[in-house]
Amino acid sequence: MLTLFFSPNACSLASHIALAESGLPYELRRLKFAENEQRSPEYLKLNPHGRVPALVTERGTLTETVAILAFIAQSAPEARLAPLDDPFRFAKMQGFNTFIAATVHVAYAHKRRSYRWADNQSSFEDMAAKMPKNMHDCFTLIENDFLAGPFVLGEDYSVADPYLFTMSDWLEGAGVDIGDFPRVQDHYQRMRQRPAVVRALSEQEMAA
Amino acid sequence: MLTLFFSPNACSLASHIALAESGLPYELRRLKFAENEQRSPEYLKLNPHGRVPALVTERGTLTETVAILAFIAQSAPEARLAPLDDPFRFAKMQGFNTFIAATVHVAYAHKRRSYRWADNQSSFEDMAAKMPKNMHDCFTLIENDFLAGPFVLGEDYSVADPYLFTMSDWLEGAGVDIGDFPRVQDHYQRMRQRPAVVRALSEQEMAA
Repeated sequence: MLTLFFSPNACSLASHIALAESGLPYELRRLKFAENEQRSPEYLKLNPHGRVPALVTERGTLTETVAILAFIAQSAPEARLAPLDDPFRFAKMQGFNTFIAATVHVAYAHKRRSYRWADNQSSFEDMAAKMPKNMHDCFTLIENDFLAGPFVLGEDYSVADPYLFTMSDWLEGAGVDIGDFPRVQDHYQRMRQRPAVVRALSEQEMAA
Repeated sequence: MLTLFFSPNACSLASHIALAESGLPYELRRLKFAENEQRSPEYLKLNPHGRVPALVTERGTLTETVAILAFIAQSAPEARLAPLDDPFRFAKMQGFNTFIAATVHVAYAHKRRSYRWADNQSSFEDMAAKMPKNMHDCFTLIENDFLAGPFVLGEDYSVADPYLFTMSDWLEGAGVDIGDFPRVQDHYQRMRQRPAVVRALSEQEMAA
């Protein structure tokens, strides 16, 4: 059994959707950010970094979305969630996912998590004001260069798709109009119809 | 033939060392950041994100260190640069590498690249002042929790090791004393002796 530690609407949604796609048995454990449960001593034992997601397996705990997504794909090869037999295409997928983790998610975090990188209120306001432009720039790259279409890697669905979906889902909160990116918007709308996405969103709502 | 686009002392050093470890044939192309070559039209065709590293292969270009390192390991299985037959340990490696890319490197970038996330000089100064503490916090996690020792994953060397080495090499410039982290320091000193590291550092110096 796999146990996913998540917070509703956090980036852990991508791993949650991948689990729902995989056919692997899993259970959910919600962390309440409002109560700072991600910094509780119990959780820090599992993930000393104090972030979601964490995936607890029989062999130990995995962290970081890029790693968890690839692990889920490798653990359920019959679900065909990654180009597992093609190192070049696998690296294309991992490159996209790392761009999300290290650039897009980081850009977004500069609104509500800016205290991580500065101390003054004026800096927080400066960063929050710039965030929508940075998210817009990131999605311009995705729209024009990274999204092969109809899925991230082209014809074949992969775990890059729930990660893109999760970021697209943040655009409204970022003050960015997804309509500026018609191919991303089409991807987002198709993703919303997938049974695994419907299931994950419903499970997150029930756990909330 | 693989072609690595790099800049001296940038995070591309990790991929360079991995290539030197792999036994794969490779050539180097230096980008001059001082002349903004990473934003030149020619380079943007290869990597629209305008960053190093980029690895040009016969099938196209790969970007993002986390993806390139895994690709090098998968392309040279006989060099044993990753736990390729064990998805859990592979995910541990990818999780560590993603922590470097999305947290440690990002923390460091808030000194000299703070203009990415804000516009005001006072914010840049605020971020630069906080950077050493954030790097110290990152390396405290690495020292106490993530570095299994003697290598990142334990007894077996992997491509996580050149990535950690590259970050350790930045500590002095970050104003952080590597002596605060004895296990990291021991890793750094052992890494410096490896022929692949000596070769990569020498090749970077010759290209500079």
